[in-house]
Amino acid sequence: MSYQLNDKVKIFTLDSNPQLAHEIVSHLNHSMGKSSVSKFSDGEIQINIDESVRGCEVYIVQSTSQPVNERIMELLIMIDALKRASAKTINIVIPYYGYARQDRKARSREPVTAKLIANLLERAGATRLIAMDLHTAQIQGFFDIPVDQLVGIPVISHYFEQKGLTDVVVVAPHNNGVVRARKLANRLNVPLALIDRRRSKSDDVKVMNVIGDVSGKNVIMIDDMIDTARTITAAAKALTEHGAKAVYAGCTHAILSGKAIERIEQSSIEELVITNTIALPPKKELLKITTLSVAPLLADAINRIHHDMPVSILFE
Amino acid sequence: MSYQLNDKVKIFTLDSNPQLAHEIVSHLNHSMGKSSVSKFSDGEIQINIDESVRGCEVYIVQSTSQPVNERIMELLIMIDALKRASAKTINIVIPYYGYARQDRKARSREPVTAKLIANLLERAGATRLIAMDLHTAQIQGFFDIPVDQLVGIPVISHYFEQKGLTDVVVVAPHNNGVVRARKLANRLNVPLALIDRRRSKSDDVKVMNVIGDVSGKNVIMIDDMIDTARTITAAAKALTEHGAKAVYAGCTHAILSGKAIERIEQSSIEELVITNTIALPPKKELLKITTLSVAPLLADAINRIHHDMPVSILFE
Amino acid sequence: MSYQLNDKVKIFTLDSNPQLAHEIVSHLNHSMGKSSVSKFSDGEIQINIDESVRGCEVYIVQSTSQPVNERIMELLIMIDALKRASAKTINIVIPYYGYARQDRKARSREPVTAKLIANLLERAGATRLIAMDLHTAQIQGFFDIPVDQLVGIPVISHYFEQKGLTDVVVVAPHNNGVVRARKLANRLNVPLALIDRRRSKSDDVKVMNVIGDVSGKNVIMIDDMIDTARTITAAAKALTEHGAKAVYAGCTHAILSGKAIERIEQSSIEELVITNTIALPPKKELLKITTLSVAPLLADAINRIHHDMPVSILFE
Amino acid sequence: MSYQLNDKVKIFTLDSNPQLAHEIVSHLNHSMGKSSVSKFSDGEIQINIDESVRGCEVYIVQSTSQPVNERIMELLIMIDALKRASAKTINIVIPYYGYARQDRKARSREPVTAKLIANLLERAGATRLIAMDLHTAQIQGFFDIPVDQLVGIPVISHYFEQKGLTDVVVVAPHNNGVVRARKLANRLNVPLALIDRRRSKSDDVKVMNVIGDVSGKNVIMIDDMIDTARTITAAAKALTEHGAKAVYAGCTHAILSGKAIERIEQSSIEELVITNTIALPPKKELLKITTLSVAPLLADAINRIHHDMPVSILFE
Amino acid sequence: MSYQLNDKVKIFTLDSNPQLAHEIVSHLNHSMGKSSVSKFSDGEIQINIDESVRGCEVYIVQSTSQPVNERIMELLIMIDALKRASAKTINIVIPYYGYARQDRKARSREPVTAKLIANLLERAGATRLIAMDLHTAQIQGFFDIPVDQLVGIPVISHYFEQKGLTDVVVVAPHNNGVVRARKLANRLNVPLALIDRRRSKSDDVKVMNVIGDVSGKNVIMIDDMIDTARTITAAAKALTEHGAKAVYAGCTHAILSGKAIERIEQSSIEELVITNTIALPPKKELLKITTLSVAPLLADAINRIHHDMPVSILFE
Amino acid sequence: MSYQLNDKVKIFTLDSNPQLAHEIVSHLNHSMGKSSVSKFSDGEIQINIDESVRGCEVYIVQSTSQPVNERIMELLIMIDALKRASAKTINIVIPYYGYARQDRKARSREPVTAKLIANLLERAGATRLIAMDLHTAQIQGFFDIPVDQLVGIPVISHYFEQKGLTDVVVVAPHNNGVVRARKLANRLNVPLALIDRRRSKSDDVKVMNVIGDVSGKNVIMIDDMIDTARTITAAAKALTEHGAKAVYAGCTHAILSGKAIERIEQSSIEELVITNTIALPPKKELLKITTLSVAPLLADAINRIHHDMPVSILFE
Repeated sequence: MSYQLNDKVKIFTLDSNPQLAHEIVSHLNHSMGKSSVSKFSDGEIQINIDESVRGCEVYIVQSTSQPVNERIMELLIMIDALKRASAKTINIVIPYYGYARQDRKARSREPVTAKLIANLLERAGATRLIAMDLHTAQIQGFFDIPVDQLVGIPVISHYFEQKGLTDVVVVAPHNNGVVRARKLANRLNVPLALIDRRRSKSDDVKVMNVIGDVSGKNVIMIDDMIDTARTITAAAKALTEHGAKAVYAGCTHAILSGKAIERIEQSSIEELVITNTIALPPKKELLKITTLSVAPLLADAINRIHHDMPVSILFE
Repeated sequence: MSYQLNDKVKIFTLDSNPQLAHEIVSHLNHSMGKSSVSKFSDGEIQINIDESVRGCEVYIVQSTSQPVNERIMELLIMIDALKRASAKTINIVIPYYGYARQDRKARSREPVTAKLIANLLERAGATRLIAMDLHTAQIQGFFDIPVDQLVGIPVISHYFEQKGLTDVVVVAPHNNGVVRARKLANRLNVPLALIDRRRSKSDDVKVMNVIGDVSGKNVIMIDDMIDTARTITAAAKALTEHGAKAVYAGCTHAILSGKAIERIEQSSIEELVITNTIALPPKKELLKITTLSVAPLLADAINRIHHDMPVSILFE
Repeated sequence: MSYQLNDKVKIFTLDSNPQLAHEIVSHLNHSMGKSSVSKFSDGEIQINIDESVRGCEVYIVQSTSQPVNERIMELLIMIDALKRASAKTINIVIPYYGYARQDRKARSREPVTAKLIANLLERAGATRLIAMDLHTAQIQGFFDIPVDQLVGIPVISHYFEQKGLTDVVVVAPHNNGVVRARKLANRLNVPLALIDRRRSKSDDVKVMNVIGDVSGKNVIMIDDMIDTARTITAAAKALTEHGAKAVYAGCTHAILSGKAIERIEQSSIEELVITNTIALPPKKELLKITTLSVAPLLADAINRIHHDMPVSILFE
Repeated sequence: MSYQLNDKVKIFTLDSNPQLAHEIVSHLNHSMGKSSVSKFSDGEIQINIDESVRGCEVYIVQSTSQPVNERIMELLIMIDALKRASAKTINIVIPYYGYARQDRKARSREPVTAKLIANLLERAGATRLIAMDLHTAQIQGFFDIPVDQLVGIPVISHYFEQKGLTDVVVVAPHNNGVVRARKLANRLNVPLALIDRRRSKSDDVKVMNVIGDVSGKNVIMIDDMIDTARTITAAAKALTEHGAKAVYAGCTHAILSGKAIERIEQSSIEELVITNTIALPPKKELLKITTLSVAPLLADAINRIHHDMPVSILFE
Repeated sequence: MSYQLNDKVKIFTLDSNPQLAHEIVSHLNHSMGKSSVSKFSDGEIQINIDESVRGCEVYIVQSTSQPVNERIMELLIMIDALKRASAKTINIVIPYYGYARQDRKARSREPVTAKLIANLLERAGATRLIAMDLHTAQIQGFFDIPVDQLVGIPVISHYFEQKGLTDVVVVAPHNNGVVRARKLANRLNVPLALIDRRRSKSDDVKVMNVIGDVSGKNVIMIDDMIDTARTITAAAKALTEHGAKAVYAGCTHAILSGKAIERIEQSSIEELVITNTIALPPKKELLKITTLSVAPLLADAINRIHHDMPVSILFE
Repeated sequence: MSYQLNDKVKIFTLDSNPQLAHEIVSHLNHSMGKSSVSKFSDGEIQINIDESVRGCEVYIVQSTSQPVNERIMELLIMIDALKRASAKTINIVIPYYGYARQDRKARSREPVTAKLIANLLERAGATRLIAMDLHTAQIQGFFDIPVDQLVGIPVISHYFEQKGLTDVVVVAPHNNGVVRARKLANRLNVPLALIDRRRSKSDDVKVMNVIGDVSGKNVIMIDDMIDTARTITAAAKALTEHGAKAVYAGCTHAILSGKAIERIEQSSIEELVITNTIALPPKKELLKITTLSVAPLLADAINRIHHDMPVSILFE
């Protein structure tokens, strides 16, 4: 498709994922807005916007990935600057929305940080959110501004379809992931199984039950995000022990913090398929990791929003 | 325990569940606030508050169950009246929070009604929400006022423990219910299985896979709410066909709309255990339905809130 | 006049008065927006918007007439859905604004429901209100968004002018209606009289004084709304007893709840002239009721708003 | 009654009506809060609060009478100062609420200044309004904070009862005042009449119809406010011409601007009964004006609010 | 430059500085919006807007100079009227922003009136502020709407450059004005001195130290505003006593309240250069006062804002 | 003084300055609230509050010093947690308020981050701010909640008085610091001088003019904060070159980022007096740095606020 945006559309990147932002801009045949983020010697963020945004429809591309607090503050300050500089609309494109797991009070006196961030973004002046695979769909409801949520499963599903595996079973790597796994299983038209994690009685070890049939199968585990990779690699181990032929894994958001890379490298996972919502630093690149780009998807969303075309086609 | 509230605490009931409200008040050794809800001949609600609430800590007990829109409007109008009458705090006790399933945009141009209701309650002037088993925990985050969420699983779990069943397996009646089922299984210390509902390929029928082992077992299905009972009774059928010895079911919120009662009566479900968050009309009382009261729990919560004691003990 | 709206204007109807909405759309040579309102079996409202509204100027036609609470909730949910679906403006056309009589605290601890509804509509996301004959003009001030209030008196006045009655006196059917009656009297250029209702001393009956001269006259009583018709029919009786030649009545909003139809049928009222702000169900159609359409007026208002033309000509 | 307020209650006066404020404080056996209002030479208001208000329940007495804009700004600035000085509650006592007649859009592009003022007071930080005889009761609904509205009619009615007039008729001096006149007529248990003002056809003069019987009667006209006194004195003339024996008039708010005093002096009004919600400057004191104090009423309201006792007894 | 605004731009003046407003309109080759401000006999402001503003980009020109409270109320009421009349944007042009010196709590229980005014303007509905030389730059931060602040120093600096004085030193007339004086000194490329005002020990008199070298120099004192002229004339005296050859003074905002004109006339100030942000009444015109117009600057700003061109060129 | 707070007062520290927080608590004879801040492996902050805060008056001690963005996010998340945990009041004690220098738009399209932070803190739920030496006093006005601002100059002034220096002159180290320097000079009753920094004409070097007399004097430079120490050390050099006998410096907030410590060590500054609003890491401790504690001041403020006593004595 040949995109055409007028020059009242300005797309800026902040510091979390400039590669993705440039890819998006390039897909749109547009130019990147001139701006920079720097720091004073005491660590305070300085935002410079080097072209007028008066009356413009502005998009800011920023994942709130590691270092998450810096990324959030950059975004809030940028929004404040744009608001005061008379931008017409401030559309924030957050491919990976951090703090999404703090989306409810699980214990006493816990914050609901995912809601707090939503409140802060709206207070600063954001007028629309474009996000991908929010950890729970309810996070949309944390916002009163319009949210366009895109989904990564079709991209990942498409990759596995192309791969031509047979005898496949989709496995939810934990109890919370069954609905997501069901969606991939539907797309691939294959059965479902579940890793049921529970505390064992005798000692304080987590037990990984495999519920459903995986023996001799090509197993694909799916999740929205992989952080420390402890769960997914333990699940892979359990699947292999239960006779899985090969274990694949897919996720939209590859946080890969702590010892994640080590764990994945040493695990029985054959291939891990991720997207580029979070920039993967070179030192985390493994041969067994395949990265798919969501830039075409995000570019299409921006184009549709600009032209008042429905975005639903991108997430249904 | 012997409760003691001072006379600055006023507890009112609206029209959805006065029995429960009276039970709560009675547990607290308190008196019911004098008020009434009536309707003008054109259907407009008229709220009468027949005692002063100036400077008082007010609790309103109202489930937003059927007829849900009437119940919500009663509640909003009551809040407005209390605010204008100079109540010090307006604590809304919503044992069953309606519209909770509209908690995300599942398709294009859908409302997020559960968030809308939260916004409306806050706008009207509510200062605290006390709720039970919100459909998703994220609904807490829809509010900026404090939310104290109580849970029904301990009550239901306690009942089944007393019952002394052996060879039990807890079953999630659908993909979305695995986490809740895991919690009950943990409390009862028994294994877990899952009903995996999917569309069959050939025709447009839903297929009920049973994932996990249920043959010869006493099965307990658990859910937060049972509405039309279509899912739970179809699940019961599948479990029976897979050799379950007996099928039990439990839920906090017994909506039981449409043909639910017929379906449950004709199903293979041996016993359905519910709570009284929603008033069960006499015509819906079945021999196989056991109702547990949440009044002690709600009374305790009100008492703790009044005395600034932690409520966490009631939901952890 | 030949109207022409562009396709960025979308007009939707909800369930209170689809006939009027279709009439408006037809006057505007426009098409009706595709949407539907349905209910789940537990009574929760489901709104479906079946075409994109992204970037559109949306009008929703909905009287908040009986069943008023359902109608208000439909409207709020629709607004929420449109806001999240990125509508550019959300213009709510409420020909009859329910709860308008709860516009002040007449007694202790009363709500001001008409203000509450205004707050809720704004909180949900409405950006403009188009209304007709609000019960008190001050209700405009309950809103901070722009309100365009149209008036029904010219339509009704025009009808009576055409009718060619002579020896006419306009009568306010109660103390609160004198200003409105004066306006009609001005338009028809005839004298004014007043029904002064007071409690009698001896017993608890309302006494209807007729203040002013009605004997031998063609009397026209005017009000903004007729609900139970108790007042207007009692007033008609008093007028007839005071020698009125014939009694006519007019109102914008024909609520006609309870025994209103019976009372009107049996009353001395010769003809009752109403408008279609509230849909009159067939079983309420009487030979002595004449219905005038406000669709041309509302269509003209929408057209003027769309083209940034002054609406004042429609209400001055 | 012997009032007793604790020292956390602070009552301040601003510059509109210090006499009334001192009377209120004296009734309450309390002391006046130390503060002053002065002006810089360029006209900017300087507020000095000369005692701590931290954690206090503060009352500010200020009518927004002439010079109304100065009075409003004094009040807003005082509220801001109190808020920033950590007052616990900021209760504004506005015996006469100015701009109350701009309470609706009567013509195109009119402001609704009475609502604007409400918004400004709330934005500045007021937490409660105590008012008297708001021009329309709907102004209560302009506020979201609690409003306690007191009424002056009982005070005025009591005065006329004591006077012992016989053969009395209460007259509404214009079409808009019928409801208020009816209330006084009810209290005095006498009949009602109405001055119906309309434009005459031939020339552009207002005609004063007297509707109802006033011949040979002692007439009492009642209104909420008398501003230029044009209407009330013209009405008095018409009543006298229609044979009224004597004409009395009463109102809560004696604005008496422009030539009001001259007109009243030269009119056929025998006695004008007013209250001290607005300070009457000595040069406006006429022998035929009788002033009743509302200080006992306001003092009682403050005392009741402080002690969380219902205020309703004062306005029902 | 030849300006061209479309007819959706409406520029109105209120009563503080119509001459400046007309100059601006004339520079823009535009016509003045039809409106008027009048007063009822009780002092309440009546705003009439005599042309449609529906969908328009509206600019209101109003300095909040003496009588400041009247000017602020006029502005707030005008904003309310425009908002309710469906103006698209409400841009307030406040050449002189009153109450700017009340921008912080200098003593206990002081208001921050400059922030209060900002809150009130936003609450009323203003969508943008165009201001000149705000007393402190931080006042921009009191607003959440965009603020375009223009500066008067280039205009004044240009005038002095044209004048061709030699041997110039710029003097800050008080400790708070050093930064501003430095800016003018930079533009004129001359040295800086400072009047350091302190209380003398022995008696309660203010001592004026001259810090830096002024002897035999042409001195230019600069300030943002001159109010009573007490400081600037005392500074002039000190400078003359310290051997200054001639003393010039400049400021943007010529408040000139109280005895300012007398003081200036009798002072050693040779020439006072001001701008017309505040209308100078004829009786205050002195031969030694030179007035420069900021109309070209404000006209250019409006033009740039309308065409979404950067305004920065005007203040950098 | 012997402080006594009841157990409804809870004081928590976050991670920026626990030493200061413990000192404050110790001064108050109170205990430190149980809480901890930790980080997940992906850098997300986890707040644990380990005791009930329901109905409590909570104080959080947190300077938003380096790493500033982490510190701000910790604070915001803590506030959210406390709000949802039903704290009665949330008082934030920010001894050093970061981003304070971004308090105005100095250039085009700059954010006003100091205001943004204020908005975020209020949005999260803070109910009061206790701060010290805000960079500009106007930052108080960025808040609508009450702000109690304490000042460090008396502490520093007291230290120098004790020191017994003679022949002292206070010097403002840059044009913006004259007012602050004047305050110290007043307290010490000594003369004032000024470092006037300007760009030289010929080359792009900053020139340091010394305006006023410093030769042979003991010079004390004062500032609110020292960040990179570039300005203060260059000023010291200029002063020494102008014959100052000895150079002392004082500031409240010792940010000391980048090469500050090196610069100070190598400078002609004899002694630098700072306070502990920012925790000085051991590696930054120099012999020539003297640290004064503000814990007694902050403890006194908390005590006064708790007991509703005026705080003004601490800052006047």
